[in-house]
Amino acid sequence: MGNSPSADSSGSYRRQGPQFTDRIVAEPAGEGPSGEAQWPVEAGRYRLVVSLACPWAHRSLIVRRLMGLEDAISLAIVDPLQDDRSWRFSLDEDGVDPVLGQRHLEEAYLARDPEHGTDNGVSVPALVEEATGRLVTNDFPHITIDLGIEWAKYQRPGAPTLYPEELRAEIDAVNEGVFHDVNNGVYKAGFATRQSRYEEAYTALFARLDELDERLADQRYLVGDHITEADIRLFTTLVRFDAVYHGHFKCNRQKLAEFENLWPYARDLYQTPGFGDTVDFDHIKRHYYQVHTSINPTQIVPLGPEAAAWLEPHRRGDLGGSPFGPDGTPPAPLDRPLRPLPPLDM
Amino acid sequence: MGNSPSADSSGSYRRQGPQFTDRIVAEPAGEGPSGEAQWPVEAGRYRLVVSLACPWAHRSLIVRRLMGLEDAISLAIVDPLQDDRSWRFSLDEDGVDPVLGQRHLEEAYLARDPEHGTDNGVSVPALVEEATGRLVTNDFPHITIDLGIEWAKYQRPGAPTLYPEELRAEIDAVNEGVFHDVNNGVYKAGFATRQSRYEEAYTALFARLDELDERLADQRYLVGDHITEADIRLFTTLVRFDAVYHGHFKCNRQKLAEFENLWPYARDLYQTPGFGDTVDFDHIKRHYYQVHTSINPTQIVPLGPEAAAWLEPHRRGDLGGSPFGPDGTPPAPLDRPLRPLPPLDM
Repeated sequence: MGNSPSADSSGSYRRQGPQFTDRIVAEPAGEGPSGEAQWPVEAGRYRLVVSLACPWAHRSLIVRRLMGLEDAISLAIVDPLQDDRSWRFSLDEDGVDPVLGQRHLEEAYLARDPEHGTDNGVSVPALVEEATGRLVTNDFPHITIDLGIEWAKYQRPGAPTLYPEELRAEIDAVNEGVFHDVNNGVYKAGFATRQSRYEEAYTALFARLDELDERLADQRYLVGDHITEADIRLFTTLVRFDAVYHGHFKCNRQKLAEFENLWPYARDLYQTPGFGDTVDFDHIKRHYYQVHTSINPTQIVPLGPEAAAWLEPHRRGDLGGSPFGPDGTPPAPLDRPLRPLPPLDM
Repeated sequence: MGNSPSADSSGSYRRQGPQFTDRIVAEPAGEGPSGEAQWPVEAGRYRLVVSLACPWAHRSLIVRRLMGLEDAISLAIVDPLQDDRSWRFSLDEDGVDPVLGQRHLEEAYLARDPEHGTDNGVSVPALVEEATGRLVTNDFPHITIDLGIEWAKYQRPGAPTLYPEELRAEIDAVNEGVFHDVNNGVYKAGFATRQSRYEEAYTALFARLDELDERLADQRYLVGDHITEADIRLFTTLVRFDAVYHGHFKCNRQKLAEFENLWPYARDLYQTPGFGDTVDFDHIKRHYYQVHTSINPTQIVPLGPEAAAWLEPHRRGDLGGSPFGPDGTPPAPLDRPLRPLPPLDM
């Protein structure tokens, strides 16, 4: 997402939910169950805009890779540092996205709603209609579900089933706790301006991580025997944990690397095509440490921790299960970083 | 010490050295080798003023305990949070030190030199003459050496030799590297305002810690077979490492707890009477996180890491050596915290 952080008068951080909840579906019926507009699945029509720093956007990038939707849905990667008009395409030539012709993602929001600019919240991931430059949806929880289900027609052979019908209730239940206490919990800890609010978030976060660590003691993945939505949603927070949440957000009871099961579990996913190859610690660290001047005024970006540890053996295969299910295969490897950054100004 | 941190125009942090370098010695000759004034060793004449937060002051507290000088030299513990007149006695009744009758340590500095107030630097440890309230010395490197040597007359039976003549050259050499790269190195990293200055300090710090880790692979203590000044000076930085330097000062290549030898070495010392019983993580964390608003504007104090890990077995005894030497004994245990703080304002 990536709106500017702010705590309310009680010292708590509150996350603004997605505001454009249209869906892109295989068989549009004009209006969905909650009254949301429906758009048709169509190759070459939509552009996925992400920040490699953002854990909410990262989910959609992983699912696009796992599903092999690269040819169907194009990708734009924004600068990890927003300016006063929010996310921007300044890593592209002349600072303009070559498909959308926009400098700021805000333009896609304004094209959708002339009254909705940066002040109202401009977040990633965003799906934007290429031809019109209009935002279609920024509804991150549905974006990944829909890439997995509604886009079946364009998916690669061997694409996994990330949200299988018989496991949905269990996945939803895990996701609910992970969202409040972990995905969003680290933000509540990091942006708290009152000690008691910080301590509440910290306590809930580590209680949940302890529960997940226990759950993963004898099963390779969170739900069932294969990777699901639940693993993807937990992974994008875990991979940022030691790099930014532990120090910058003061989530420091222990490092991820000090958890008995969560750490090998996270490494297992990291070493799975589609996960580690979508992680860019440069984007992640520069975004958090340089954008949040309310908690890091010097904007110094820490050198540590060393990322090499992510490649250590994990032995999670001994627990059984397989990443992509009986008929699934891994996506083809990515052999270079998605969007390397220029050297940091020293 | 504890002057307000500031980086110079090159983005580097520079530490101000001690400014009052008088010595307290067994046989004063009026003037020492560098022209410094000499004061006589005398029980009941001087008061040691420390902050439990400050690693430089912590050294003198450990040595006073190891030498059994509690009855000879009284102790004052300042509030971990300075105000605009620097270190203060606000933990004492009515905010006044019961012996010196002062509210701020600055008064002792002003009594020594009417032109030397907070703006010129008021640091701990400080030895103050009780009868006059005048600062005698804030020369922390000499204070510990002198407590170990010059105060022999008042030391307890079984007090160790912390700076043995035959090892002084080696101790001095170790201390020199530890001072620049570790003791002061963490401050250079934490208070840097330019990325390159931070990276220089970080690189030198971890290179030195790697060297020390290697050195401690097959010897229990840094120099010789017993605890020396070198161990005390390294310990006061190591014990603060995971609690404050790792996150707050961005010294995050790894935690102390992730070093193969430094971590058991530090636990060994922590579990030795005179070391762990002089550590107060509340004082330490509140000082760093609440005073340095230039790097932690929210003043939230992290809950982690958990201190219980310091009590885990260390097995360093297998390497031979003994903490206090062949004729030495441990000081009597302290059974309660030196100066517990009231609960944090939530």
